[in-house]
Amino acid sequence: MVKLAIDAMGGDFAPKEIVEGCLLAAKEFSDLNLVLYGDEEQIKMYMKKVPENISIVHAKDKLDMGEKDPISAIRRNDELSLVKAFKAVHDKECSGVVTAGPTQGVVVAAHMIIKKLEGMKRVAICPQLPEVGGKSRLLLDSGANTDVRPEHILQYAEFASIFYKLTRDVENPLVGLINIGSEPGKGRELEKEVFELLKEDPKINFYGNVEPKELLTTPCDILVSDGFSGNLVMKSFEGCAKAMGIILKEEISKTLGGKIGYLFMRDNIDEFKRRMSADEVGGSLIFGVDGVVVKAHGSSNAYAFSHAIKLARKTVLSNVLETVKQHLNE
Amino acid sequence: MVKLAIDAMGGDFAPKEIVEGCLLAAKEFSDLNLVLYGDEEQIKMYMKKVPENISIVHAKDKLDMGEKDPISAIRRNDELSLVKAFKAVHDKECSGVVTAGPTQGVVVAAHMIIKKLEGMKRVAICPQLPEVGGKSRLLLDSGANTDVRPEHILQYAEFASIFYKLTRDVENPLVGLINIGSEPGKGRELEKEVFELLKEDPKINFYGNVEPKELLTTPCDILVSDGFSGNLVMKSFEGCAKAMGIILKEEISKTLGGKIGYLFMRDNIDEFKRRMSADEVGGSLIFGVDGVVVKAHGSSNAYAFSHAIKLARKTVLSNVLETVKQHLNE
Repeated sequence: MVKLAIDAMGGDFAPKEIVEGCLLAAKEFSDLNLVLYGDEEQIKMYMKKVPENISIVHAKDKLDMGEKDPISAIRRNDELSLVKAFKAVHDKECSGVVTAGPTQGVVVAAHMIIKKLEGMKRVAICPQLPEVGGKSRLLLDSGANTDVRPEHILQYAEFASIFYKLTRDVENPLVGLINIGSEPGKGRELEKEVFELLKEDPKINFYGNVEPKELLTTPCDILVSDGFSGNLVMKSFEGCAKAMGIILKEEISKTLGGKIGYLFMRDNIDEFKRRMSADEVGGSLIFGVDGVVVKAHGSSNAYAFSHAIKLARKTVLSNVLETVKQHLNE
Repeated sequence: MVKLAIDAMGGDFAPKEIVEGCLLAAKEFSDLNLVLYGDEEQIKMYMKKVPENISIVHAKDKLDMGEKDPISAIRRNDELSLVKAFKAVHDKECSGVVTAGPTQGVVVAAHMIIKKLEGMKRVAICPQLPEVGGKSRLLLDSGANTDVRPEHILQYAEFASIFYKLTRDVENPLVGLINIGSEPGKGRELEKEVFELLKEDPKINFYGNVEPKELLTTPCDILVSDGFSGNLVMKSFEGCAKAMGIILKEEISKTLGGKIGYLFMRDNIDEFKRRMSADEVGGSLIFGVDGVVVKAHGSSNAYAFSHAIKLARKTVLSNVLETVKQHLNE
């Protein structure tokens, strides 16, 4: 049985899409036991009948999606659905938590409530990149820590390698370092030092430097960087996808052929757009705390949220945290 | 008369496309005087008749596009077409130089041969981003200097503001700072300090922080960052465009409708791809040295190279360097 805490009130379309996502996941996996934290009355509006493997714990408040100061909000208010869900993980009532709440709030709650794993120096946000060529790569840290030391990035690589091996069934996942050039010796002092650490670590299958232009086509499974750089890369991809949507529309509408062609391939272009919205389906993992934390995209619909639950379930069942703990104690 | 030095041997398709690009530009602008540096025999193969406003200066060697150590190569060999062209600017024989040679070699030559403007602390690479919504934005530094201080980025902003104002006829170009969040106070120490400097500078029309996801849709005309971050952003856009091309192809070929639609809109999609290849047309400026330097894309064809010449011409005619010099002496 995998018991997961769900923040039913986090996300742009909460609680409706969150509740429906839980129903989808609970139906698909009979080994799931979901505890939904949030406004009981509202949650029940979207469930005709509460399934056996779902329960509800009332929480009267929720963290606002645009909250400017999540640290104070989380510290001040025990009645937030997010806080209650994270406490359930801290108290070992649940093995993991899934939320579509605001990223900063999720990182803060993971830090303050669940707390870091002993021996783990930093927390990292790890999104799964859009699948290209049959592979969905990991990028971490994508924004939890802007100022880090080389050994922190080494730990990200070790953590992600264990996660990838156990959840994806790949014996020696290949690790690349995000950098501005592919040759050794490129980048700032930080990258040069991380390069050496990764190269010397016998537990890492190190590929070398990877420029962001190869992000979705590199043979690597895992890409590491400091949180500032990782965040810039993620947001650049988002910006490029957005701009490309605009430009594609401009170009298609320029000629009659373009307009006719569009009628034929409208579905293909929609599917293309969906695939390019990074981390829309699947969610990001928060690595480094003593519990499984999955952050679903803020704009998650039921389908996307059910995938985030699936990711949390898989991570719990694969004993990722236990393996990392052993590794940290070696 | 605008006299420009041309490195006829730099670029993936040199000298053919370079020479043909020069012919296009020389024909369009009778005030241009182009001096082509390179292998005379090869250059003449692509010119039936040398026009009046084009001359050739023989250089027997060229900098290899894949040269691993451009510093030594440039220091060692005065016979490189790149070195000769840059020397013509240093010696004030020409007002500017245009080359499609390798970026690192161009930056090194600008530094070592033309030399920095007095008072200018760092050199910056400034590409023009793909046009979206009728605006082509500038991003600098996109990779000349990985370790910089806040005042260097302030100078980039001042330099680019003068350039934008004089060449684009915009009275108060809007400047944004590349960052991982849009609110003040975001980013590393570097971004926080640069934010304050930009805010206080009366010569800068400062907008605030800009996340890379808004890079091509922001109201800003100019975006500044350190060279490491700027390079990551540029290469991420390149990677995203590349991946999107692959995904779009995958999706279109999945259904019959997609394939039929593609036949109708093939031209539109080709034009879309062309527009998304950042800096393919137009080239990047190298700011900070005592001469106009335009780096055309390595894969430039004649059309793209003629646009790079056009950019150099416009920059010379707009007295950008003279205005910057006045500004630096104020």
